[in-house]
Amino acid sequence: MLAEVITIGDELLLGQTVDTNSAWMGEVLAANGVALHRITSISDQADEIVAALNEARSRVDLVLMTGGLGPTRDDITKHTLTEYFGMSLAMNHEVLRGITAWFAGRGLPMLPVNEAQAMLPDGCTVLPNPRGTAAGMWFEVEKEGRSQVIISMPGVPYEMKGLVEDEVLPGVKAKWSLPTRYHRTVLTQGIGESYLSKVVHDWEEGLADRGVGIAYLPAPGQVRVRLSAVSDGAESVQDRVDEAMADFLKLAGEHVVAEEDVTVAEALVQQLIAAGATISTAESCTGGSIASAITGVAGSSAVFEGSVVAYANSVKVAALGVDAASIERYGAVSEAVVTAMAEGIRTSMGTTYGLATSGVAGPGGGTPDKPVGTIWIALATPSGTKARLLQLGNHRGRNVRRTVLECLAWLIREVRTVSVD
Amino acid sequence: MLAEVITIGDELLLGQTVDTNSAWMGEVLAANGVALHRITSISDQADEIVAALNEARSRVDLVLMTGGLGPTRDDITKHTLTEYFGMSLAMNHEVLRGITAWFAGRGLPMLPVNEAQAMLPDGCTVLPNPRGTAAGMWFEVEKEGRSQVIISMPGVPYEMKGLVEDEVLPGVKAKWSLPTRYHRTVLTQGIGESYLSKVVHDWEEGLADRGVGIAYLPAPGQVRVRLSAVSDGAESVQDRVDEAMADFLKLAGEHVVAEEDVTVAEALVQQLIAAGATISTAESCTGGSIASAITGVAGSSAVFEGSVVAYANSVKVAALGVDAASIERYGAVSEAVVTAMAEGIRTSMGTTYGLATSGVAGPGGGTPDKPVGTIWIALATPSGTKARLLQLGNHRGRNVRRTVLECLAWLIREVRTVSVD
Repeated sequence: MLAEVITIGDELLLGQTVDTNSAWMGEVLAANGVALHRITSISDQADEIVAALNEARSRVDLVLMTGGLGPTRDDITKHTLTEYFGMSLAMNHEVLRGITAWFAGRGLPMLPVNEAQAMLPDGCTVLPNPRGTAAGMWFEVEKEGRSQVIISMPGVPYEMKGLVEDEVLPGVKAKWSLPTRYHRTVLTQGIGESYLSKVVHDWEEGLADRGVGIAYLPAPGQVRVRLSAVSDGAESVQDRVDEAMADFLKLAGEHVVAEEDVTVAEALVQQLIAAGATISTAESCTGGSIASAITGVAGSSAVFEGSVVAYANSVKVAALGVDAASIERYGAVSEAVVTAMAEGIRTSMGTTYGLATSGVAGPGGGTPDKPVGTIWIALATPSGTKARLLQLGNHRGRNVRRTVLECLAWLIREVRTVSVD
Repeated sequence: MLAEVITIGDELLLGQTVDTNSAWMGEVLAANGVALHRITSISDQADEIVAALNEARSRVDLVLMTGGLGPTRDDITKHTLTEYFGMSLAMNHEVLRGITAWFAGRGLPMLPVNEAQAMLPDGCTVLPNPRGTAAGMWFEVEKEGRSQVIISMPGVPYEMKGLVEDEVLPGVKAKWSLPTRYHRTVLTQGIGESYLSKVVHDWEEGLADRGVGIAYLPAPGQVRVRLSAVSDGAESVQDRVDEAMADFLKLAGEHVVAEEDVTVAEALVQQLIAAGATISTAESCTGGSIASAITGVAGSSAVFEGSVVAYANSVKVAALGVDAASIERYGAVSEAVVTAMAEGIRTSMGTTYGLATSGVAGPGGGTPDKPVGTIWIALATPSGTKARLLQLGNHRGRNVRRTVLECLAWLIREVRTVSVD
């Protein structure tokens, strides 16, 4: 079963909004046996919408569209589809009640443009959207003897996701019987795509014969490895993928930081919970990003106590107990200072581990001795404190993200080693 | 001048990677007078690449492709394009030297698959990529008497961006003479798209006659408003847009948090620098995300002192001086506690302002009295402390992002009010 996504909005083409909807739909559809065949982003123009829809319908029988359903005049998707399918707009009183309730629940007055959002094509199945004021629309039409479904949803990710989960997936599953498809993704860190590929070369050579596909999904500092198989009837695709993955895990060894498709922060929180350990952070150049990454994980309060973001040197001294003379002598970006920060936070918050960062994130602040990208990280543990020097690049955001990733993966390996011991 | 983008990679269709490249290219191209007409994402399949390229070439004369240039066997873009253009692969010794230097600079051994990345189509212009091992390729061909340019670049954002800035833009500008195009975007917060549209209704009605286009770009809690115009020769498009924008700014009033296309955090840092003020944060439910947002802005060290992420109640008491009896009596999520947190951090870090958050981000931790989404925020200022209660939804990440946004915008308005006084 193939589907296509069409995302609509001038802001996508002008680069003022990143299209995160397509990736989310691709993942959810794949997990349900629907392979996304193409994603097309177009402007808020009727002829573009019609052209893209005709092209998609020439390739696949399920088309999901997002965007252009807002109340303002640059939103033309609903009018375009109504005309495209030869329908007329009619007031949908159930949707109108929903919109009225939505405004009432927020204590806000309802405007005529919002009331107009309840005018919907008379021949579509309306998909209620309790999260907003733009309803979804399910159009079902014949093409060359096949039944095609075209769905239009608002572009606000939160509203679109709710519609997909509550309305679109149940509807698609009810309409088509879908083949079994199984993916498994693991997360490696600290090894480049080509090195990883070399380490597992012979194994990879044999994958096709096992009926398993592989993809390397690189991001800065990490590579996700995905194995997949589609059911051919007799045997279990899950066993086939799991057996191939077991071989991969042996070959990739310590480079694997998570044996499932989670973020590094999620893997860390799981490991800390399993080990009964806790963590606190003392952050200078990462500015709270490690704490933010960890606390982004639901349930992290079981393992995360808190953090001191010590941007100013005075905070390093007052809140973390770093020796002012040490800062004076070695500089804030130094092994001595980052070690004291890690030990200071571990002691003051009473946690199993303390992580600390101090570096020159850039773009300013570099010196010949300590150029931009010079970043010290330290990990205080029950058996002592270690420090490492990272030498990264010139890009502030990238330096912070890489440092966060290195710290989290470092702690994952530390906790795993201790747990094994 | 129109262009299209084709992004290539199974991971995009499976939703394992969000395509951020297209938005970035769209923005950079628009700023240079090239309008992105369509974005197409396809899988790593030769027939898909050929089909998408043929379709794009039937609509526009400039096609930018990213992805599928890695060293592993699922990367087939280079081979597909070489065949498509009837070329052959040949060793490019300059690129080989670059790749060799890239590995030497990192103290890493070079693998045969990396050496093979220097095999490039003999009829293209090679675009050197000092940031990685996959070179860019510039193909120039005739179609129906017009000259067309097709460019292939690696999908790693950092490498692609470098290639666009260093090679693609200069090349495109040299080849085509581009019309003058001018955009201006401002950022509003705390007013929905339809309310904003109503407030400025009459003004918006007159925009078309002024030769100015408008787009509302909503994101949770904020709306960016973009005005644009294309030069028709005689008058300045910049004046035309700026005059229309001046009228908008009067109508939108305090809802405008930035008069340029910056993030809320960037606007805040600019305002604090202008006011000579400093900030510290005490974060519970936001877990360091406010600090992370502020320190993500280059130059923020001039205004940001530090933060205490007080996830555990013991940290609220020990590091922020919150009265333990207060937590016992009112709960950690309360006006009394968040007020004490804001005052505690402002005092201990000696800053002009102190921001604090304490709430139930979810998905767990809610009670009938304080359901998930109940979030207190406080702002300590030289003239006293204010607290506000936010009642948000059930989604953890969304609750954190909304809270960060509310806090930053609140402080922007506070600083602006004080500066005006």
